[in-house]
Amino acid sequence: MRGMSKEQNDTSISSLLTPHPSPLIMPDKFQEECAVLGVYGHEEASNLAYLGLYALQHRGQEASGIVSGDGTQFFVQKGTGLVADIYNKSVLDKLPGHMAIGHNRYSTAGGYNLKNIQPLIVNFALGNLALAHNGNLINAQMLRHELEAYGAIFQSTSDSEVVIHLIAHSKADSFLGRVIDAFNQVRGAFSVVLLTDNGLIAVRDPYGLRPLCLGRLRDGWIVASETCALDLLDAEYVREIEPGELVVINDQGVDSHRPFPKVDPAMCVFEHVYFARPDSRIFGGDAVYTTRKALGRQLAQESWVPADIVIPVPDSGVPAALGYAEGGGLRFETGLIRNHYVGRTFIEPEQSIRHFGVKIKLNAVSEVLRGKRVVVVDDSLVRGTTSRKIVKMIRQAGAKEVHMRISSPPIISPCFYGIDTPTKKELIASDHTTEEICKYITADSLAYLSIDGMLKAAPGSPEQYCSACFTERYPLPFTRAEELQLGLFEAAH
Amino acid sequence: MRGMSKEQNDTSISSLLTPHPSPLIMPDKFQEECAVLGVYGHEEASNLAYLGLYALQHRGQEASGIVSGDGTQFFVQKGTGLVADIYNKSVLDKLPGHMAIGHNRYSTAGGYNLKNIQPLIVNFALGNLALAHNGNLINAQMLRHELEAYGAIFQSTSDSEVVIHLIAHSKADSFLGRVIDAFNQVRGAFSVVLLTDNGLIAVRDPYGLRPLCLGRLRDGWIVASETCALDLLDAEYVREIEPGELVVINDQGVDSHRPFPKVDPAMCVFEHVYFARPDSRIFGGDAVYTTRKALGRQLAQESWVPADIVIPVPDSGVPAALGYAEGGGLRFETGLIRNHYVGRTFIEPEQSIRHFGVKIKLNAVSEVLRGKRVVVVDDSLVRGTTSRKIVKMIRQAGAKEVHMRISSPPIISPCFYGIDTPTKKELIASDHTTEEICKYITADSLAYLSIDGMLKAAPGSPEQYCSACFTERYPLPFTRAEELQLGLFEAAH
Amino acid sequence: MRGMSKEQNDTSISSLLTPHPSPLIMPDKFQEECAVLGVYGHEEASNLAYLGLYALQHRGQEASGIVSGDGTQFFVQKGTGLVADIYNKSVLDKLPGHMAIGHNRYSTAGGYNLKNIQPLIVNFALGNLALAHNGNLINAQMLRHELEAYGAIFQSTSDSEVVIHLIAHSKADSFLGRVIDAFNQVRGAFSVVLLTDNGLIAVRDPYGLRPLCLGRLRDGWIVASETCALDLLDAEYVREIEPGELVVINDQGVDSHRPFPKVDPAMCVFEHVYFARPDSRIFGGDAVYTTRKALGRQLAQESWVPADIVIPVPDSGVPAALGYAEGGGLRFETGLIRNHYVGRTFIEPEQSIRHFGVKIKLNAVSEVLRGKRVVVVDDSLVRGTTSRKIVKMIRQAGAKEVHMRISSPPIISPCFYGIDTPTKKELIASDHTTEEICKYITADSLAYLSIDGMLKAAPGSPEQYCSACFTERYPLPFTRAEELQLGLFEAAH
Amino acid sequence: MRGMSKEQNDTSISSLLTPHPSPLIMPDKFQEECAVLGVYGHEEASNLAYLGLYALQHRGQEASGIVSGDGTQFFVQKGTGLVADIYNKSVLDKLPGHMAIGHNRYSTAGGYNLKNIQPLIVNFALGNLALAHNGNLINAQMLRHELEAYGAIFQSTSDSEVVIHLIAHSKADSFLGRVIDAFNQVRGAFSVVLLTDNGLIAVRDPYGLRPLCLGRLRDGWIVASETCALDLLDAEYVREIEPGELVVINDQGVDSHRPFPKVDPAMCVFEHVYFARPDSRIFGGDAVYTTRKALGRQLAQESWVPADIVIPVPDSGVPAALGYAEGGGLRFETGLIRNHYVGRTFIEPEQSIRHFGVKIKLNAVSEVLRGKRVVVVDDSLVRGTTSRKIVKMIRQAGAKEVHMRISSPPIISPCFYGIDTPTKKELIASDHTTEEICKYITADSLAYLSIDGMLKAAPGSPEQYCSACFTERYPLPFTRAEELQLGLFEAAH
Repeated sequence: MRGMSKEQNDTSISSLLTPHPSPLIMPDKFQEECAVLGVYGHEEASNLAYLGLYALQHRGQEASGIVSGDGTQFFVQKGTGLVADIYNKSVLDKLPGHMAIGHNRYSTAGGYNLKNIQPLIVNFALGNLALAHNGNLINAQMLRHELEAYGAIFQSTSDSEVVIHLIAHSKADSFLGRVIDAFNQVRGAFSVVLLTDNGLIAVRDPYGLRPLCLGRLRDGWIVASETCALDLLDAEYVREIEPGELVVINDQGVDSHRPFPKVDPAMCVFEHVYFARPDSRIFGGDAVYTTRKALGRQLAQESWVPADIVIPVPDSGVPAALGYAEGGGLRFETGLIRNHYVGRTFIEPEQSIRHFGVKIKLNAVSEVLRGKRVVVVDDSLVRGTTSRKIVKMIRQAGAKEVHMRISSPPIISPCFYGIDTPTKKELIASDHTTEEICKYITADSLAYLSIDGMLKAAPGSPEQYCSACFTERYPLPFTRAEELQLGLFEAAH
Repeated sequence: MRGMSKEQNDTSISSLLTPHPSPLIMPDKFQEECAVLGVYGHEEASNLAYLGLYALQHRGQEASGIVSGDGTQFFVQKGTGLVADIYNKSVLDKLPGHMAIGHNRYSTAGGYNLKNIQPLIVNFALGNLALAHNGNLINAQMLRHELEAYGAIFQSTSDSEVVIHLIAHSKADSFLGRVIDAFNQVRGAFSVVLLTDNGLIAVRDPYGLRPLCLGRLRDGWIVASETCALDLLDAEYVREIEPGELVVINDQGVDSHRPFPKVDPAMCVFEHVYFARPDSRIFGGDAVYTTRKALGRQLAQESWVPADIVIPVPDSGVPAALGYAEGGGLRFETGLIRNHYVGRTFIEPEQSIRHFGVKIKLNAVSEVLRGKRVVVVDDSLVRGTTSRKIVKMIRQAGAKEVHMRISSPPIISPCFYGIDTPTKKELIASDHTTEEICKYITADSLAYLSIDGMLKAAPGSPEQYCSACFTERYPLPFTRAEELQLGLFEAAH
Repeated sequence: MRGMSKEQNDTSISSLLTPHPSPLIMPDKFQEECAVLGVYGHEEASNLAYLGLYALQHRGQEASGIVSGDGTQFFVQKGTGLVADIYNKSVLDKLPGHMAIGHNRYSTAGGYNLKNIQPLIVNFALGNLALAHNGNLINAQMLRHELEAYGAIFQSTSDSEVVIHLIAHSKADSFLGRVIDAFNQVRGAFSVVLLTDNGLIAVRDPYGLRPLCLGRLRDGWIVASETCALDLLDAEYVREIEPGELVVINDQGVDSHRPFPKVDPAMCVFEHVYFARPDSRIFGGDAVYTTRKALGRQLAQESWVPADIVIPVPDSGVPAALGYAEGGGLRFETGLIRNHYVGRTFIEPEQSIRHFGVKIKLNAVSEVLRGKRVVVVDDSLVRGTTSRKIVKMIRQAGAKEVHMRISSPPIISPCFYGIDTPTKKELIASDHTTEEICKYITADSLAYLSIDGMLKAAPGSPEQYCSACFTERYPLPFTRAEELQLGLFEAAH
Repeated sequence: MRGMSKEQNDTSISSLLTPHPSPLIMPDKFQEECAVLGVYGHEEASNLAYLGLYALQHRGQEASGIVSGDGTQFFVQKGTGLVADIYNKSVLDKLPGHMAIGHNRYSTAGGYNLKNIQPLIVNFALGNLALAHNGNLINAQMLRHELEAYGAIFQSTSDSEVVIHLIAHSKADSFLGRVIDAFNQVRGAFSVVLLTDNGLIAVRDPYGLRPLCLGRLRDGWIVASETCALDLLDAEYVREIEPGELVVINDQGVDSHRPFPKVDPAMCVFEHVYFARPDSRIFGGDAVYTTRKALGRQLAQESWVPADIVIPVPDSGVPAALGYAEGGGLRFETGLIRNHYVGRTFIEPEQSIRHFGVKIKLNAVSEVLRGKRVVVVDDSLVRGTTSRKIVKMIRQAGAKEVHMRISSPPIISPCFYGIDTPTKKELIASDHTTEEICKYITADSLAYLSIDGMLKAAPGSPEQYCSACFTERYPLPFTRAEELQLGLFEAAH
């Protein structure tokens, strides 16, 4: 029998109807902050940028912008919401030119102001310049204060704008020299695409924290955060932009530079775990889907449990659940059905009754779950609130046992490189044991993937990844000033 | 290597950017036309209606409306687009009252005019009346002409409006008598919810062509097209509204009537195949998900083929593919990734280059498909155009063999009971053999499920279903006038 | 010195910011309810309708609609607000056809619902029909109840819709017969333009309460409430549509009918006083401007007072003030400056602080008024509240004496023929003497024009006018039922 | 009989329907470019700013903005269109604080970009700063290039932004020092209001080219372009901000500075002729209405002609026409009726058929004009195109003679100080004699006011005015670079 808890009975429906900023996303996940894209050498560059941004929608749903250029002028369109809602034929017709860059934004950390929507665009002494940035600069505030003391006037509250002012104030001779000068002063994660009157410049930070790849389309070139954008455009995947590489793309072709001191790479392993689209290839590996299945298989090996069925938390948990089922010799089922029509402005329940929020997106199929021992596989567990509701939902649908399996390790520390993460305190694994968390989410058992297991399943060398959110070992040493500003001091103690 | 066909190279991107009315839906499917919902006896009736319509979004994405009533006045909100975009807190605050009905609409057969968005609402001699209708009336045009000859003035081009005029013109003594009088004159499919100043009336046609169920929520009642709406509202599933049943819901409770001559039921089997949400229970059976898996298992039994992997056409093909994989002892994989951010206004390619259109929604994962013998499972095949593109996409991703399996029989005839179907000529199976279709879609093999196999896998008695789209045996005999009007004459000859 | 009263100092500005429905109009005036227009026989009929409605904007600023027809189909556009804001090139391009009718609406007595915006448009047994109505039917409610009892379903709450149902239910043989049948059943004021698939029908009630004129444009015809619309279209003024005349306009030309019993005309004298545009010729007379000057001259003759200057309350008081100055041998000045940028959505003060409201529109010029004996001329005085504020404003600007002169008699009774008037109780002259009113508005003297003087200044015979608002002698005898419904019983006692 | 010329008969109506940017204004006039306003020391500062901007609407109808401040934060609202359409209660509720500045803009010389709408607002090293500017800086481009060479990045294409960068780059010790430093570098017309976190700064250029006045409201202060804004706010007029004066307004009160080298004043005489509202007092004189009447009287004295009536081109020509009639002993009449409902988006005729455009706004009253010798008085004549159409319209209405009288001298040269003027070539008087112009506009006679007559009628000393548009004697000597940039070189030769 399907019972109703007291808590639900008391729920006043109208109190459920407060808006929630990003309902398309499961609320209890880390969030990628941005997608970047560049197109050079195609007469319909802005159309391609639009389609590419559409393919990269999962990396940012709050806002989007495209700037196109014809060698003389820039043309710009920005808006809040989904790519498919911001652009249309008449908008794109106003973005002529053979080159374009675009940006999707998840959070609007600098506020919802239109000015903070990228690409940032300026006209300065050297002409037009537009910038699209995926990542986060940890010394942005300090640089901004210095620049303002010299008379610089900032347009936005976006950290990315410091790069533009550094370029404008640089004393280097050439435009390229100024760009290199600027990026040598910033610290943190940056996969950036710049548009100038002459072409594109794509830069990836020395650690390669965020992905960035290069594709070829007939006579033109595409730069994109992920290869799924190349696939949609029928562009050929050429290679990754390497960590620490700066690429100039213009009518002379593609010219590669290595302007930064060499450091060990530290690519974000969470891109494999959750962020990237399963059909994308990142960091030189195979499709992320394959890696996620491997994570699931590894998880089955580490924490197998006798069960009747394995179900994913859809959609992101599907590959790992398939891997777990395969690796564990268990039956895969779809026990939770996801409603894909949530929409941008869906009115969602407040925090206090988030259980309802999960129901908005997921419904349990009693016929699948009733009387079963169920392994439910999710890719990550952040606060635990959603997992708790999912476990309850599965149990209410009649499951006999609910075993939660997470295809990544416990998250114990925030990310400062372009991911929207809660504070350390909100990360349930930062100060709770797995047993405590298991009890909190009311599961019969809970197991995370080990760090070693994760890095083993991920393609390439284990040393090439940043796993700071699992290990608290950040690839860039922080200055004391940065620690204070990022709240790290507090976090560390 | 991922090649590009000549055809794609010649594609001008800008020609891709013509709008397409319903991009959230795979273009080459039958489309359910409507969802209906009623709420009685809850102080936040319109909020519940909103949430219920949200759960029923898959039955209609073009427009939606809610009418609430407080016993004296009606309050109304209608709009085009998704439920989540039409309603918000301030809109719902303007829909007070303890009862409400709602409607989602897929197509706007009567044109995109706001007047055709249901619930239809009128004020006439007996007070306020609102109507929400799922289904199609085959004698609506004839009834309309008769009514107009008597001086009736129609507000909309919607066929459903004839019901209202029949009620207004009826000479029966009571309001209920008038309603029964009216529904006894219409022929076709109707799952209807009426709102009056006193309560709800829910009616289902004698054949039970479209689903309709009854739920209980504390002191109130819910009527809905599918049980997934009850689940979201935490309402208890009571039972189906039976074929030929009319239910009056007011402060006296629920009163059941059987006002129609008894006929054999003819419930739409396609609801199991594709329309209903997998977590819904319809026509008295288990969750649709279970039935779809059974269809897949039956399909494997009928047309097994040696293969390395079984992949679904997502999302609707997933349960049948799981059933096929299980039944056939083959490995299930996710070889096609779906982009869920399409959005309402996505600019889609034109017919001539629909291949691109499929790419907008689906991308193949080469790592999964390369070198493999692939069984791809879809729930139905209408025109064949999309299947052709999917087969090509899978092959371009490196598959060695592509075997298409359809978990329903060949569609040879249109539906006249509330489903948006192409004309007979556009149904590829109406005049092509399976071999011809296999060749057209460029698959290595193609197999449909048999009619007997489908009815065996569907819950309950095989006789209780309408399978007219597969068999051309329509449950209602058409008059000659109806045949002419529906274009059946032409179709039949 | 410009002082500030205590009252103003205490005014909280934010309380001033409540919206007011029709700010373009001085709040304390009678309001014309509608303009009607018809065009036949011009390939750009809807463009002409648009321009004509623009010229008739003063007769209704709340909403507007145009319906065009090409002989087969109707095309429609409606909206709230000003003509110039509702229509544009792309809208008008969607209104093809060689004939069109249009309507401007002042009040939306039936509520702001889009359905109440005219032209009303229906498709019924005899084809398409659209109706635009200026006036008011005093037996509309009773007719509506009768029609509903026969099964009629009304779309709007507009009284004008009864005419359409009467046409639909008529048993007359011909379409024209039905129309005549219908108009013979309604009582009240109607200047109506109908659009059918064949052409236009223009009808004016037997009393001729509201104006309606006929113009010629090349091969086509224009019907309009006032001649200013003909002027803008460069159409030639042909003649008035006579009281009690029905005119059929189609490809056979113009055919005149007299389908109503003959009665004495009773044309609204207030059209001369205030409603009509000064450049229009109405009721067969000269330009209204000339009549208004004559009213002013007559006023000077009746109530001359020694003064230094004569100023109008702009804009409507200008002609009468010029006439007064001329007739009285006094100097005309512009002592009050009007701000013409009020805009549709201007946020106006609430009733309690209407003084501010007058300042939003008018500012006094101290240099003109200081130390002067001022005659201020307005066309009418309804509640007295605005006059009171104007007198105070003039006095604060330094005037030594303020003499208010009204170029029409005291208003003692409401209008039931299409004018938006306050209830009898709100008409200050209904229960106050001129002395009392003078005191209330704080003027040094107040004089109204006499009824005889007004009728003498108006063109044509004094007997041809309805002066019911000044005399309480209504041209149509009311039935008891109508008295009750119109609140006349209460009003009369 | 009212004839129609061939030209009109051929006019296709649809070709009339192209949009025109600023239809509220007669097309053939000089246009004031901006209004500025500041409020300090009132808890509802933004509400006052809104009302003040509404009163100043005549100085700019294209766009408007308000920035309020509470000492810590700035709040901003900007939009295109009329003040009454941009702001409403909910918008103003989001503009808290005890101080605010606002701006109305006529032209968007820098393009219609939202960034160019003032107040400009920045956050820089010294905190928040907002700027509203009426006037034009003739050395803005040169300063911009210099600033960009130092690394400055401009947000807008507005010339006013250079002032902000000059402040940011100044090496002066104090904020006030920086402001003075900045304004000492710019040349041209500036009546500017700045908002900082501490209060307001109001500055007027040494020539006093544009007006700026100071008012007192209870404990607070108002700065406004014209006194009509003070009147609406019930603020007491204190005095003009003097030419060359800089006033600091904060919680210490009002502090006056004279930071600029002393020069002879050169206040724009055209403010008297046309720009300012008739009820405003500017440049220390009486109401502009009085001055305009004096211009008309002087005109009658200089160029009297025997006539039956004097009519104005409404609305701006009314005071001068009244003065002419009084001075000339002739009868004043309203022979042209203006339609005040034009609206922001009115679709206006193209240049080629501007005659229609005049009809949109004006209609002639035949009864007034027929058979008469008419003097028509306008305030200025720029291109002559509109005058030509007005003369024709009057003559078509039956006038026997049409004598055009202009209450200002022939305009021979453009303005570079904040007025939107056509190029020298488009000024008909720059290369045509009065006789030639008379012939072009088809008048029976034409006379302008003499320069001496104008300066005699204007209040105060004739030497205090800039009459450059009539005399080509510009108060600021141009550098050669400026001449080139302003196109003056070409103009002069």
